[in-house]
Amino acid sequence: MAASSFFNRVSKALNSSPSSYKLVLLCTLTLSGGGVVAYSESQSEPHRKKKVVVLGTGWAATSFLKDLDVSIYDVQVVSPRNYFAFTPLLPSVTCGTVEARSIVEPVRNIIKKRKGEIKFWEAECVKIDAANKKVSCRSNIDNLVGSGEFSLDYDLLVVAVGAQVNTFNTPGVKENCHFLKDVEDAQKIRLSVIDCFEKAVLPSQSEEDQRSNLHFVVVGGGPTGVEFAAELHDYVQEDLIQLYPTVKDLVKITLIQSGDHILNMFDERISSFAEKKFTRDGIEVQTGCRVVNVNDKEITMKVKSTGEVCSVPHGLIVWSTGISTIPVIRDFMEEIGQTKRHVLATDEWLRVKGCEAVYAVGDCSTIVQRKIMDDVLAIFETADKDNSGTLTVEEFQDVMDDILLRYPQVEHYLKKQHIYDFTMLWKDSQGNERKEIDIEGFKLALSQADSQMKTLPATAQVAAQQGTYLARCFNSMDHCEQHPEGPRRFTGSGHHRFLPFRYKHFGQFAPLGGEQAAAELPGDWVSIGHSTQWLWYSVYASKQVSWRTRYLVVSDWARRFVFGRDSSRV
Amino acid sequence: MAASSFFNRVSKALNSSPSSYKLVLLCTLTLSGGGVVAYSESQSEPHRKKKVVVLGTGWAATSFLKDLDVSIYDVQVVSPRNYFAFTPLLPSVTCGTVEARSIVEPVRNIIKKRKGEIKFWEAECVKIDAANKKVSCRSNIDNLVGSGEFSLDYDLLVVAVGAQVNTFNTPGVKENCHFLKDVEDAQKIRLSVIDCFEKAVLPSQSEEDQRSNLHFVVVGGGPTGVEFAAELHDYVQEDLIQLYPTVKDLVKITLIQSGDHILNMFDERISSFAEKKFTRDGIEVQTGCRVVNVNDKEITMKVKSTGEVCSVPHGLIVWSTGISTIPVIRDFMEEIGQTKRHVLATDEWLRVKGCEAVYAVGDCSTIVQRKIMDDVLAIFETADKDNSGTLTVEEFQDVMDDILLRYPQVEHYLKKQHIYDFTMLWKDSQGNERKEIDIEGFKLALSQADSQMKTLPATAQVAAQQGTYLARCFNSMDHCEQHPEGPRRFTGSGHHRFLPFRYKHFGQFAPLGGEQAAAELPGDWVSIGHSTQWLWYSVYASKQVSWRTRYLVVSDWARRFVFGRDSSRV
Repeated sequence: MAASSFFNRVSKALNSSPSSYKLVLLCTLTLSGGGVVAYSESQSEPHRKKKVVVLGTGWAATSFLKDLDVSIYDVQVVSPRNYFAFTPLLPSVTCGTVEARSIVEPVRNIIKKRKGEIKFWEAECVKIDAANKKVSCRSNIDNLVGSGEFSLDYDLLVVAVGAQVNTFNTPGVKENCHFLKDVEDAQKIRLSVIDCFEKAVLPSQSEEDQRSNLHFVVVGGGPTGVEFAAELHDYVQEDLIQLYPTVKDLVKITLIQSGDHILNMFDERISSFAEKKFTRDGIEVQTGCRVVNVNDKEITMKVKSTGEVCSVPHGLIVWSTGISTIPVIRDFMEEIGQTKRHVLATDEWLRVKGCEAVYAVGDCSTIVQRKIMDDVLAIFETADKDNSGTLTVEEFQDVMDDILLRYPQVEHYLKKQHIYDFTMLWKDSQGNERKEIDIEGFKLALSQADSQMKTLPATAQVAAQQGTYLARCFNSMDHCEQHPEGPRRFTGSGHHRFLPFRYKHFGQFAPLGGEQAAAELPGDWVSIGHSTQWLWYSVYASKQVSWRTRYLVVSDWARRFVFGRDSSRV
Repeated sequence: MAASSFFNRVSKALNSSPSSYKLVLLCTLTLSGGGVVAYSESQSEPHRKKKVVVLGTGWAATSFLKDLDVSIYDVQVVSPRNYFAFTPLLPSVTCGTVEARSIVEPVRNIIKKRKGEIKFWEAECVKIDAANKKVSCRSNIDNLVGSGEFSLDYDLLVVAVGAQVNTFNTPGVKENCHFLKDVEDAQKIRLSVIDCFEKAVLPSQSEEDQRSNLHFVVVGGGPTGVEFAAELHDYVQEDLIQLYPTVKDLVKITLIQSGDHILNMFDERISSFAEKKFTRDGIEVQTGCRVVNVNDKEITMKVKSTGEVCSVPHGLIVWSTGISTIPVIRDFMEEIGQTKRHVLATDEWLRVKGCEAVYAVGDCSTIVQRKIMDDVLAIFETADKDNSGTLTVEEFQDVMDDILLRYPQVEHYLKKQHIYDFTMLWKDSQGNERKEIDIEGFKLALSQADSQMKTLPATAQVAAQQGTYLARCFNSMDHCEQHPEGPRRFTGSGHHRFLPFRYKHFGQFAPLGGEQAAAELPGDWVSIGHSTQWLWYSVYASKQVSWRTRYLVVSDWARRFVFGRDSSRV
């Protein structure tokens, strides 16, 4: 048993660096016995590529696959969806501004462009067995011949399975609300909106019934909820009231937000513009309300300030209030000891904490940044080259670059405090310059920095950047093993192999309907209005994953301008 | 009770001819009591339009609505589908050559163009009560507030509900086969084809499993089945084997036909060309086979000639073998005494036999032509003006035009016998010309004509022509009451109000895949090949119901040429 596990370890080591270590290892092996077997094993597949298994086909997985050097890895992708969906356009799909098919690209098309070195299996990962480096998968296609269950071994695992909608355990939400995470969700909403109108105009409906059926409720005032409400309002005003003129005055859209403002992750100007525009448009915005119950006829909410509870009838509810962890990831977290956390934690190199060779990208995980105060002693010791017990400015300067790379919160802190020259940290509490600083002074200087640690938002932009980052790491893994690129290891020796992941925010849009949009651009720029909507069109067209979807999305927009949106219940 | 039903009858009579009969009826009414009420009722709506209820939104109903003069009728349309679908393109939708949404047009758009005089209810007709001139309807949308059941009174009812697939009571067909009647059917087939491929490439599949899952069976060698088989073959060869290269040699398409040839309603040249092309393409054509059982894994068939029974595993079956009557029509047939028939019977004016004020068009009904031999005595009597007991050539000539209009089979018979001058009928059995003809000679001359009675095929072309014809009748109903246009009534007095419906065949296409099509054009022209496919493209583009769908269909075709078909499971 011991020998065999030794063989395993050795052959893994051989495989992980097929060319370089072979000689060294051979020596070790011949000394320890059984080396011949291990060597011949390695000889029979002298260049076995490392097996990379990717779970998911969303933003993170797709950008990872697009940039990965497939010549050096044996790549297998597992996902229950055989396509990549351009999720930021999902709200447009709900009202037929864009067709569902225009925002999806088959994974196999993306693979084909990578010259077929990637295998794809349409299946769901049901278990990640990190101890045995294995994932168990199951196909969702039931009615066909043969088993749909299989498991895959991996050397490196990339988890990019995304998240599910967070219902906050509100009763009745799962049964009676629509979500807006998948293409299927958007398609269902589209049919249901038409259903509400078709039902409302039937001769058997009282006016009260009509009002109930035409009451559209959106729960969640984030970008998705707001965009859906805006899209729906446009759809109703521009298309549906022409086709259902008898009920045009009975349609009502309500947006429920638990916070005090909608779009509260955006600049205040955007959030107040959106609220005013919605009020003008007749979309009722109910802030400070929490939904406590939903059934097939009514939605019940509690006004936070007064504690008052009220129920209103609804025709359709779209629930869009944030995300939570999917079951397979929860099981995995338990397995690797992340039991107390809500979200899977990775380090700054996107490695899942508590296990080896598993990386996580996108909405399924969050980067838990290392606190600088945890390492402050080690940093001090590293910097204090002469072991004098104090740091000079030069000594501090020497480690500062590595600190800024390793602990991004320090940079945020300096920026926030308008400290453009870090020697300003050097001043004592009276503002006097110091020549040297001791450990207590050093701690004091950095003590506030950890307050600036930020969690990245669960957006497509973050996921895509993580995928791209991870692909670059994978591509240069062998090289960086020898020639590390990352910052100095303060708690160990040498350097980190890679620079840690750093998110670059390119801005965010919030389409508000009526051909108007708001955008928060880098450098705290805010842009609101019709021109922003055109910027939105051009950015979203350019960001499409293929020329095919680009052509489809743009021609959908054109079609909508010419012919309006389709209201067939298809 | 008696009085009230009398009022009903009277008010109906008043309503049905608002202006002309009013005076006469008033006299009758004042004599019989209660007349004041009835009159005041009529006075309050002095020009009440006749209520026309149309059931269905298919080819027949839509062409009826497009041509109906909506200013003279109060029109209500009931259909479970709020769109018109261009059904001849359904096989293209199954493989994504054309998108589902490109071939549908919302009924409300069609209505809007008629200036909103038409009301539409998205509901299913569950009962036709011809005795009380009423239809009961039920909405299929369950999860909304208020009742979805209502009933509509009509003065004139147009039944255009179409038909359902005929399974010939073969066990397991309903549960395990796909049909190809609706847009939803086509969408489901599209998803299932992708499912078959995704399942087959999973690592858990044996080669036998793979072969089973990639065995596509088409039952029915008519135009729909053949076109689907051809489309699927193109889809597999042009798109799917690029994306699923590992299973490209395991795909098999089988076409099962109970008759001796596929496309047996077409010219023999077309049917043999299609069979040869399919054999070349590797599509297995099994003629003379009847499917006796289907389960989720296997399809069992019987070779008609040998009686041999064999079962083969399948991944997907598309069942396309003809049509049968839907339940609501079967109930209606029972109500009106058409119990022994398979299909709802109408006369040549599309009036349902056995009840009043109900018309039926499209696939739900068939025209039962009147046999000339049933009326031969009456015709003879009408023609024999001088009551001589014999007809002269002049007397015969006088009724011949009416005979040709009333009994189209006579024309077919003359054409078939190459009789271009009907006096040739005048010859006796020895071929001698006669001056006069008695009743026996007259019977003999026409005795073979009824053998040429034809049932119209259940095609879009027939349905559309019936809809247009009926709209024209409705438009000129008042006028033709006074000035009948139709042929002489041999069994009664006067003339028929309208000319009977006459189908004009403009030809039929059978796309065979690989950018080749066959067409049977009027005048027994046959055209096969690539140019016919282009003719098909142009005819189908021109026949689109709106500019919107025309644009969409043509741009889908263009997209397919440039980007191929999409294989996302959406």
